[in-house]
Amino acid sequence: MNKPSSPSLPLVGDVSGFPEYLPQQQRGFEHAVGIIRGVYESFGFVPLETSRVERTETLLAKGIASKEVYGLRRLNVEDGEDGSKDVALRFDLTVPMARYVVQNQGQLVFPFRRYQIQPVWRGERPKAGRYRQFYQCDIDTIGDGSLPITADAEAIACAYGALKALGVGAFGMRVNNRKLLSGLLAWAGFAEAQPAIKLIDDAEKIGWEKTAALLAGLAAGAKVEALIAVLRAPAPLEAIPADAGVDDALAELRTVITQARTMAGLKDGDTSIRPDLIIARGLDYYTGTVVETTLAAAPELGSICSGGRYENLAASLGKKAFPGVGLSIGLSRLLSWLLLQEPYASLPLSPANVVVACQDPTLMMHYAEVAALLRNDGIATEMALGGALGTQLKNADKKGIRFAVIIGQAEFDAQTAVVKDLQAGTQNVAPLDTLGATLGKLLKA
Amino acid sequence: MNKPSSPSLPLVGDVSGFPEYLPQQQRGFEHAVGIIRGVYESFGFVPLETSRVERTETLLAKGIASKEVYGLRRLNVEDGEDGSKDVALRFDLTVPMARYVVQNQGQLVFPFRRYQIQPVWRGERPKAGRYRQFYQCDIDTIGDGSLPITADAEAIACAYGALKALGVGAFGMRVNNRKLLSGLLAWAGFAEAQPAIKLIDDAEKIGWEKTAALLAGLAAGAKVEALIAVLRAPAPLEAIPADAGVDDALAELRTVITQARTMAGLKDGDTSIRPDLIIARGLDYYTGTVVETTLAAAPELGSICSGGRYENLAASLGKKAFPGVGLSIGLSRLLSWLLLQEPYASLPLSPANVVVACQDPTLMMHYAEVAALLRNDGIATEMALGGALGTQLKNADKKGIRFAVIIGQAEFDAQTAVVKDLQAGTQNVAPLDTLGATLGKLLKA
Repeated sequence: MNKPSSPSLPLVGDVSGFPEYLPQQQRGFEHAVGIIRGVYESFGFVPLETSRVERTETLLAKGIASKEVYGLRRLNVEDGEDGSKDVALRFDLTVPMARYVVQNQGQLVFPFRRYQIQPVWRGERPKAGRYRQFYQCDIDTIGDGSLPITADAEAIACAYGALKALGVGAFGMRVNNRKLLSGLLAWAGFAEAQPAIKLIDDAEKIGWEKTAALLAGLAAGAKVEALIAVLRAPAPLEAIPADAGVDDALAELRTVITQARTMAGLKDGDTSIRPDLIIARGLDYYTGTVVETTLAAAPELGSICSGGRYENLAASLGKKAFPGVGLSIGLSRLLSWLLLQEPYASLPLSPANVVVACQDPTLMMHYAEVAALLRNDGIATEMALGGALGTQLKNADKKGIRFAVIIGQAEFDAQTAVVKDLQAGTQNVAPLDTLGATLGKLLKA
Repeated sequence: MNKPSSPSLPLVGDVSGFPEYLPQQQRGFEHAVGIIRGVYESFGFVPLETSRVERTETLLAKGIASKEVYGLRRLNVEDGEDGSKDVALRFDLTVPMARYVVQNQGQLVFPFRRYQIQPVWRGERPKAGRYRQFYQCDIDTIGDGSLPITADAEAIACAYGALKALGVGAFGMRVNNRKLLSGLLAWAGFAEAQPAIKLIDDAEKIGWEKTAALLAGLAAGAKVEALIAVLRAPAPLEAIPADAGVDDALAELRTVITQARTMAGLKDGDTSIRPDLIIARGLDYYTGTVVETTLAAAPELGSICSGGRYENLAASLGKKAFPGVGLSIGLSRLLSWLLLQEPYASLPLSPANVVVACQDPTLMMHYAEVAALLRNDGIATEMALGGALGTQLKNADKKGIRFAVIIGQAEFDAQTAVVKDLQAGTQNVAPLDTLGATLGKLLKA
């Protein structure tokens, strides 16, 4: 696939791979997180945090390469006891969530819907949009013993809603089903599905010609060409041969997509949520629905929202089955592009709407009173701390603060204030005792 | 000081010292963070995040015991390069902030007000309310070269506003000034202030009798009794002897307290913000204002909001002076008590206000449409995924969801829905096309 490259957000930070935002970027980050939270909560997902630190054995049980895991060590353990030696920073939010659910199952209400917007750590080589410390935004729904397929549709619709609300432009959530893919592989003559699934997962990166050759190498006599023709058909669900024996899996995929499209409010012809049989996902633990998402405007980001159904993720941790389905937005990577777009790129730097200027330092107590008064009226208000009035107003404007309240001795004596619109450059005199109401009206206008 | 002990929040978690909240507690945590953010932003503080990981040398330069720092290590470095060996998890938010300001000074608008609500890590022995991973909520204002004393008052008023808004009951913010304390120590005959300051900082823990003896051991012939009489006087500022030579520092402390009280809107007689000459703070880098805060209802927590003025924190990192003042709420410790209080202890578990019940699984597509409709009207709506209707409603009620929308075949045919108030037990039939409006009204009532 020929990926056009768009500019990537320049980041600061002191340690390679551990980026930091400048204040303007941070405002964009907070804005995005607020939007995602709002959508996740509108579906009834509850916020959760797990410890950043897990037992190393919990993490390594899930097949991650150990070189990608950051262990902890105490720098200088004088008492000889290094309580940190068997713990490490988590590399995703799914494995810790599964551990949490098994440990606290008696105190949770199932199905348990949780969201988690937090950083994870991986010791990978950093490059554009790929960091060693990055945010993921996960939703997962976990059932106690069983979980209806509607949960899969809901996760897709919820993530769709979040991406839509973020304003990322056109995007495609491509949905497949592992059982369907395994069935088609069996039909094509592959005795074992997993190795072929890993190859199909890489196909868009390495090209289909090479993938076809590698698939042919896996199973002599397999119907590789016929398989690929089905997987890549323009209307793949209709291209599935009647003798493939995948009717149940196909019905499941159709249900998930139809329900998800309905919950997302998609119109006919909108392909934002659609079936795509080449979607495989590398991870072993997926057992049904699998999803990947690419942006039309920034395909070079790869999948910015992925996940699927897992029946047995927590099985190694306890006796009971806790089937789940989850999707994760790769927030740091998404923001490496999104923070360069509007409105993120030009959000006001300050959360304050008003600055109380300091025209005369001897009136500081009066300014403090006025600022307290405005905050009491629900108006976020910054106090200028001193310096030349012109610089104060220039800095406030630079920070996106719209109005300045300017009070000199004359205004103090008259119990008034000059209210200046820093964007328009206009100003008016307003009585002090209704200043909050005056500014409230101006901010609404 | 005789500290009564109140019950401490029981926490879960897989690794000792790295606690996790149950969903109910997490809701309380989120509620508290939302309140603090709101107050911090109303003063114009901007959100900031720094990397969780810092160069080890940056951290150790600031005098923390190295055994309290968690370094990182790659578990299994196949390529021989362990890029993690000189980095460690931050132990506070102040040192990284100072590093960030120096590095990005050219791109910040000064005075730079930032807040940061994030975890830090310390390899301490865990006990009730003391964790190895815990949240701090910091505000700091940093000047470029100089910073007016009003910034100190503002930080105190802002933290006061946050604690007040959290509803922690009565509390006392005790304010002192390091220059004043050093001046009094000089007057009392101590050639060097810092060792005496450390003793005074510990006085409330070890008792004043023992402190007096230790102070006397520091400087032969020092006026220890006279000093302690001043420090502990009921009206300490009035008890300062005229010949102490601390007029400037005293004036500064008075200004900070008076301005802070005004900005906080305190009435005469309200001692929530008051001078206290025994407040010293252990850390070396404070140079002026110092603050500690204790709750009337939970003094055993110790200081839950502390900080002060530092003129030279960033001096070791660059050529320029960036004086600052900051306060930090020890959120994890505070919440170990606060989450047991109302309203935190009984917040609804789910952010959803409405559950669309699943009375008849064949109508699932209709339920999906109804849920989408309600969310479109701004109503957070959970879908029940199946199971017995009674269990669905019981679980929704357990999660604090107020209303259930119940649709069977009869309602579907009539394009209506049964709206049930799960708290009151009452129910009504409502037409489907105005269901959002109906529920909107019920939720407002």
